[in-house]
Amino acid sequence: MKQSLGPKILAQPAPVWVIGSYGLDGRPNVMTAAWCGVCCSKPPCLAVSIQPQRLSFAGIMEHKAFTVNIGSADQAAMVDYFGMVSGNKEDKFHKTGMTPVKGEMVNAPYIEEFPLIVECAVIAVHELGIHTQCVGEIRDVKADPSVLDTKGMPDMLKVHPFVFTPGSRAYHAIGDYLGQGFSLGKELCKADTEPPKTTSKAAPARS
Amino acid sequence: MKQSLGPKILAQPAPVWVIGSYGLDGRPNVMTAAWCGVCCSKPPCLAVSIQPQRLSFAGIMEHKAFTVNIGSADQAAMVDYFGMVSGNKEDKFHKTGMTPVKGEMVNAPYIEEFPLIVECAVIAVHELGIHTQCVGEIRDVKADPSVLDTKGMPDMLKVHPFVFTPGSRAYHAIGDYLGQGFSLGKELCKADTEPPKTTSKAAPARS
Repeated sequence: MKQSLGPKILAQPAPVWVIGSYGLDGRPNVMTAAWCGVCCSKPPCLAVSIQPQRLSFAGIMEHKAFTVNIGSADQAAMVDYFGMVSGNKEDKFHKTGMTPVKGEMVNAPYIEEFPLIVECAVIAVHELGIHTQCVGEIRDVKADPSVLDTKGMPDMLKVHPFVFTPGSRAYHAIGDYLGQGFSLGKELCKADTEPPKTTSKAAPARS
Repeated sequence: MKQSLGPKILAQPAPVWVIGSYGLDGRPNVMTAAWCGVCCSKPPCLAVSIQPQRLSFAGIMEHKAFTVNIGSADQAAMVDYFGMVSGNKEDKFHKTGMTPVKGEMVNAPYIEEFPLIVECAVIAVHELGIHTQCVGEIRDVKADPSVLDTKGMPDMLKVHPFVFTPGSRAYHAIGDYLGQGFSLGKELCKADTEPPKTTSKAAPARS
């Protein structure tokens, strides 16, 4: 029997992505966002939700560009800091000693010291409520060669990103390898054994 | 020096959420989605991208509702299977012995045996390309009491969800606790020491 927790944001896990942009004055800034995710395969897009009063928002709208900087677990304190302070108050690159590098494909800065970078051009903006969703078409991905696997893809255990828990606000690292997508389920695809009898609690749909 | 990997979907990690819906014929169905994420705090919303030719899509549009079912790492093979086979071909609830339960707040079924459930009403639909993004307003969250922490919030290590790696397609479990969001970064907020001198590679923004 499930316990109802109400209409709260308790889906998990959420990624922890650092969004890089130039401000209206051309200065590089970063902020941390967790209301994010990939949203389309073709064109390749991801979505990042930002509150319009955030300093980053105006710059992203002006330059129609942002970067996603994916940090490793040992950068978690820095990533958390990037989400706690406004770029209006502090130069976050200066404070942390990180190096802003101008994107090659879009007009936004990325963090040289982060292992995995995605350069995005804004192609759609959706006002949803207190957050506005910026859809970015992926124009390039850049990685430290040290985090690539033998096929040249970013290896999750080498990038070693971390996730956020809505509700409890805990950060957790990525853990054990479980298997391959579109492969782990093959045995079930083949199986034609009768499942255990269960009494369905499902009422018919309303229409 | 970063290596360019091209305009590919290589952002990580991605959640692995099982989307529940009733079909046009009222039958419960589930499919697995990774192009997902929370997208707004008020109203509380999450976004799930689905290809329109998927069986689930028509039902979600018809009933304006879906559930997000968050499985634990030991359910990974089943979750993978849910993403490999169409509900047109197989009754995935029957095959796996899972129990569909009608949502309390929306007209969509959830999986009784999964630890964490989010009931969503569709409030916006965005055609982005081969995927269409369904924005769902969260109407309720339901959890197994066994996965809640002492404050009644879903505990990441008890839900024990897993993530997907775009590119390599690897699934990984959630790992070590790193600390609290909006807390880990406090030391950096206080610090006013000069960061190490770095040579900025940043060119000025174009505008």
